[in-house]
Amino acid sequence: MKVGIIGLGYWGPNLVRNFLAHPEVEKVYGCDKKEDRIKFIASRFPAVELMTDYDEMLAKDIDAVIIATPVDLHYPLAKKALEAGKHIWVEKPFTAKSAHAQELIDIAAEKNLRIFVDHTFIYTGAVKKIKELVDSGEIGDITYFDSVRINLGLFQHDVNVIWDLAPHDLSIMNYLLEGHKVVAVAAHGVASYYDHENIAQISVYFDNNSFAHFHVNWTSPVKIRKMLLGGTKKMLVFDDMENFEKIKVYDSGIEMKTTESIHEALVQYRIGDMHSPKVVATEALALGAKEFIASINEGREPLTSGKDGLDVVKILEASEESIKNRGKLIEIA
Amino acid sequence: MKVGIIGLGYWGPNLVRNFLAHPEVEKVYGCDKKEDRIKFIASRFPAVELMTDYDEMLAKDIDAVIIATPVDLHYPLAKKALEAGKHIWVEKPFTAKSAHAQELIDIAAEKNLRIFVDHTFIYTGAVKKIKELVDSGEIGDITYFDSVRINLGLFQHDVNVIWDLAPHDLSIMNYLLEGHKVVAVAAHGVASYYDHENIAQISVYFDNNSFAHFHVNWTSPVKIRKMLLGGTKKMLVFDDMENFEKIKVYDSGIEMKTTESIHEALVQYRIGDMHSPKVVATEALALGAKEFIASINEGREPLTSGKDGLDVVKILEASEESIKNRGKLIEIA
Amino acid sequence: MKVGIIGLGYWGPNLVRNFLAHPEVEKVYGCDKKEDRIKFIASRFPAVELMTDYDEMLAKDIDAVIIATPVDLHYPLAKKALEAGKHIWVEKPFTAKSAHAQELIDIAAEKNLRIFVDHTFIYTGAVKKIKELVDSGEIGDITYFDSVRINLGLFQHDVNVIWDLAPHDLSIMNYLLEGHKVVAVAAHGVASYYDHENIAQISVYFDNNSFAHFHVNWTSPVKIRKMLLGGTKKMLVFDDMENFEKIKVYDSGIEMKTTESIHEALVQYRIGDMHSPKVVATEALALGAKEFIASINEGREPLTSGKDGLDVVKILEASEESIKNRGKLIEIA
Amino acid sequence: MKVGIIGLGYWGPNLVRNFLAHPEVEKVYGCDKKEDRIKFIASRFPAVELMTDYDEMLAKDIDAVIIATPVDLHYPLAKKALEAGKHIWVEKPFTAKSAHAQELIDIAAEKNLRIFVDHTFIYTGAVKKIKELVDSGEIGDITYFDSVRINLGLFQHDVNVIWDLAPHDLSIMNYLLEGHKVVAVAAHGVASYYDHENIAQISVYFDNNSFAHFHVNWTSPVKIRKMLLGGTKKMLVFDDMENFEKIKVYDSGIEMKTTESIHEALVQYRIGDMHSPKVVATEALALGAKEFIASINEGREPLTSGKDGLDVVKILEASEESIKNRGKLIEIA
Repeated sequence: MKVGIIGLGYWGPNLVRNFLAHPEVEKVYGCDKKEDRIKFIASRFPAVELMTDYDEMLAKDIDAVIIATPVDLHYPLAKKALEAGKHIWVEKPFTAKSAHAQELIDIAAEKNLRIFVDHTFIYTGAVKKIKELVDSGEIGDITYFDSVRINLGLFQHDVNVIWDLAPHDLSIMNYLLEGHKVVAVAAHGVASYYDHENIAQISVYFDNNSFAHFHVNWTSPVKIRKMLLGGTKKMLVFDDMENFEKIKVYDSGIEMKTTESIHEALVQYRIGDMHSPKVVATEALALGAKEFIASINEGREPLTSGKDGLDVVKILEASEESIKNRGKLIEIA
Repeated sequence: MKVGIIGLGYWGPNLVRNFLAHPEVEKVYGCDKKEDRIKFIASRFPAVELMTDYDEMLAKDIDAVIIATPVDLHYPLAKKALEAGKHIWVEKPFTAKSAHAQELIDIAAEKNLRIFVDHTFIYTGAVKKIKELVDSGEIGDITYFDSVRINLGLFQHDVNVIWDLAPHDLSIMNYLLEGHKVVAVAAHGVASYYDHENIAQISVYFDNNSFAHFHVNWTSPVKIRKMLLGGTKKMLVFDDMENFEKIKVYDSGIEMKTTESIHEALVQYRIGDMHSPKVVATEALALGAKEFIASINEGREPLTSGKDGLDVVKILEASEESIKNRGKLIEIA
Repeated sequence: MKVGIIGLGYWGPNLVRNFLAHPEVEKVYGCDKKEDRIKFIASRFPAVELMTDYDEMLAKDIDAVIIATPVDLHYPLAKKALEAGKHIWVEKPFTAKSAHAQELIDIAAEKNLRIFVDHTFIYTGAVKKIKELVDSGEIGDITYFDSVRINLGLFQHDVNVIWDLAPHDLSIMNYLLEGHKVVAVAAHGVASYYDHENIAQISVYFDNNSFAHFHVNWTSPVKIRKMLLGGTKKMLVFDDMENFEKIKVYDSGIEMKTTESIHEALVQYRIGDMHSPKVVATEALALGAKEFIASINEGREPLTSGKDGLDVVKILEASEESIKNRGKLIEIA
Repeated sequence: MKVGIIGLGYWGPNLVRNFLAHPEVEKVYGCDKKEDRIKFIASRFPAVELMTDYDEMLAKDIDAVIIATPVDLHYPLAKKALEAGKHIWVEKPFTAKSAHAQELIDIAAEKNLRIFVDHTFIYTGAVKKIKELVDSGEIGDITYFDSVRINLGLFQHDVNVIWDLAPHDLSIMNYLLEGHKVVAVAAHGVASYYDHENIAQISVYFDNNSFAHFHVNWTSPVKIRKMLLGGTKKMLVFDDMENFEKIKVYDSGIEMKTTESIHEALVQYRIGDMHSPKVVATEALALGAKEFIASINEGREPLTSGKDGLDVVKILEASEESIKNRGKLIEIA
């Protein structure tokens, strides 16, 4: 298999390294308009064939294109690649508009090509372990999902903090709460420094009584990456800043009691043991590359498909509309 | 000075102990309808004169009444006390309705009586220290206030999690952001177990560009009491679960840069030193009692007055209306 | 049952409160030479009959004497009580000399009286849970015990940091490693400020290959109360500064592998899950009082007997001799 | 400048990368007996010229030799390099015997060559910042140094845990306590699994009243890298497991009070603010390489010289002798 990577910026070297290391990849091409990025990659990865023209790369005998450019270029570059008959890997968020995402999905379906959206957290040992726990029924039904992803982050020029940070957590939510349908979204926040919001508080309503909330923030003095998952049986905390005990499962919870007297407590809580399962430390990107290539070989959708990318973009779009209207509730079709 | 305490439940012994210990208090009366509470207080505090009838206590030669009953009784008991010419101390939240709070304030004003609302955090060493830092200008202008107060809490029968937990954080916000005017509130959340919400996410908009957010939750497996304060000069974290380093002030922040080219970064961040000031550990309730009695003696408003209680109740009321309407934005008059 | 407490200082009120609360204790007497302590206890606990003369208290119709004075008075007061036919409760450390401890044990045996030494940690939920885990075999054979108990502590006038802090950890060690025999002790440290050592590092050798170490320190800027327990099957951490997850059991460890080649690794390690059992929060002192009275009623040795007190004093004595001689190894008979 | 690296194992790639990146290094040679290491380095760093024979590398026109082999080879390889007129960089610990270290120092002196011992922590932002604080007098006189470096570590085949882990902390101690003279050492510990000790507790006595202690351990379920520094003015904690607040300086301490009455407290403690200075994050190895080359160019001793390496080896040697004799006190000449 031969692959071409367009966009060799911050994330580019990681993509190059992982595709080079994949046993089925025999050739990696790289493309970037900036000469200094070409030089940098050339010095680090002499095996990569580099160029500045995207059409030139598409003309090569490549099977797949990896798109790692700014978001607004995802759609035109992806469309061109699909039309040239290439499978595509697109960094998160999939596209800047849901209509674009849908169009790409349609083209890929028509041409029987694969779309892989790089929701990279889905391939981490931690999220895979949490998914196992949820699917096994150990947590019970999910009552809420709460996520905080805040730090002193680099302001983006083209998008607000929602488009920058929330895709991670939304993709994790969709993965873990598979089968739950998002029906409405509201987002509050503030743009303290210029026209893009640096703080956002996103609430997500589901068709059952579940609820999710996301706090994303570029202006926190401390770095927090913490997720709570409430279940009818157990509760779980995922703290990605912990080096060793990332996941803690609490045998604690809330129990409904039927009582004869309405004056007595109807809800009781119990505190129990805690268990922290070992998390496998394999690099997520390597597992993502493996899944992408397997999906191509096997002619099937990858674990993080265009559809998954679209689902996240829909919530981002709704959040954007909501935050610009002081938290107006936006229904999700 | 002589005081009478009505409501000798969970919080009652602390009130009894602190008023007994106040050097200007010569006599403490106690009142509760429940015989077992009367017995309990009698065994622990033999100096307190106890009774089960509120009118009987009001008829005593007392200067002030301390009200520590369920919220819905605050208004009728407070009104009766004021009409009997007594100063009042009311536990948080001040009242269940803002109209009631206003009425009590009016009566007290007419009769020249003091209302003290027990926003107890205002009297902690930590919040006093933060107030000092804010007032000194060290933090700069406040850009945001973010608070998380979650744990596996006892469900209340009469109110939801907003009325139970948010008064603490709202009173701290109003104290620290003195001069900032709240203009609108929205609250999202869920009632997972019965008709009262156990999770709430409250967003508060101000008349300037400041923003505040509150996460209160009775169904978290872990206990978090953390507040972030963003300023134009410094940023502050108040972690009330820390035993020793409750306040951390970060000499880190966001700087606006004017650049010639619009393509260049306009916002930059810097990371600097951190400083954790020593926090004095005096019991907040003792300082509250001291302030209440001083305000009576000096004929002035206490630090946490009826007006402060009303301001908090207004936001609670708006949050309640909003959460029942999926986050509808509620303007604050 | 009637009890008399001698020494009403720092720890006195806790003893008074817990014995008053014990259902089988019908009368509590208290004794202290200092009038201000007598007054303080009188105001807080009006039910206690107080006096300043120890002989007067011994002459009362009491069953047991609780001794909570400075260490050097333990022996004479305890001896007098035993000779007067009273059971005794002695605060830690049991005595200042092992010969005194042995003498008290002998008197008690002859008169069939109970000696309870207040190794209070043995009655905490955490230590009881750890004992359960050790006794169940889940940890395997204990390979090492490591304890750190350091903070900015009050310097004692009469003893060094070893006598002040180490009794806690030594009593826990002896309890958990029941059956392991201490054979030698060495202690290093320094007296930075006056003639009593403020830092001590104590090493304990056993008759099998186990090893224990204790770091006690009055001059640490941070408070650490952490114990590690290495086992052949699992490893355990007890962090007493944690509010919620005091005990963590690690399914991690060291495995010996027999290999064909001597050049290959003989020792391998594995990393596994972690489990944090719920710890019951009952006050240790209440459980200690219960055990003391039960041992009297049942005519049997209490869980923390004179023998346990003696075992700790022997190690303290050896540590003292060692630290005065730059860590000279002291054999324990 | 041209350099040759002997030993391309675990640490080799880091050395190769950093010397390749140094602007004054024009050529890097690499040498290892193992073909697979040669292949690995060749694929990652095509610019390096590789070989399996050390003499062949020494015969090249190189200025300096970097020695990153097992400890027992340091001495013969270093001697050969010095005799061939090359400057040397030796990984820690410098040598397995202090006599060997002295001999290498003498040869280098005679031939006017530089010896750099890679005490890499000396070049970290954290240790440099602590050194600044100590040298500025802010901490006052150092009363004690306490270090814990424990984790579930790989057992070494040739040395015990002292030789593996303690060189880091001993080099930091010597750097920070410059001017303090070590006079005696004692080490206790245990070999739980085979003939090399996996736990060691090392006490170090100075010619003034300072004291240092080191706990190194390959068999701890948790990873701790914590250093306490007690001073007469302030106290400092260095926690290398913290991502952001590695250094905390406590304005807390111990004060001697002269009192008229001998019954009054002579020692008092105060608790004050805490300050956490920003730590620069430059890679230590890059700064080490820079210092090595600067010392060659300027004909002066590097910051971590052969003398520094010898001082550490002396304490390691004494610790080894002591631990084999149950903590016998070993004087340091």
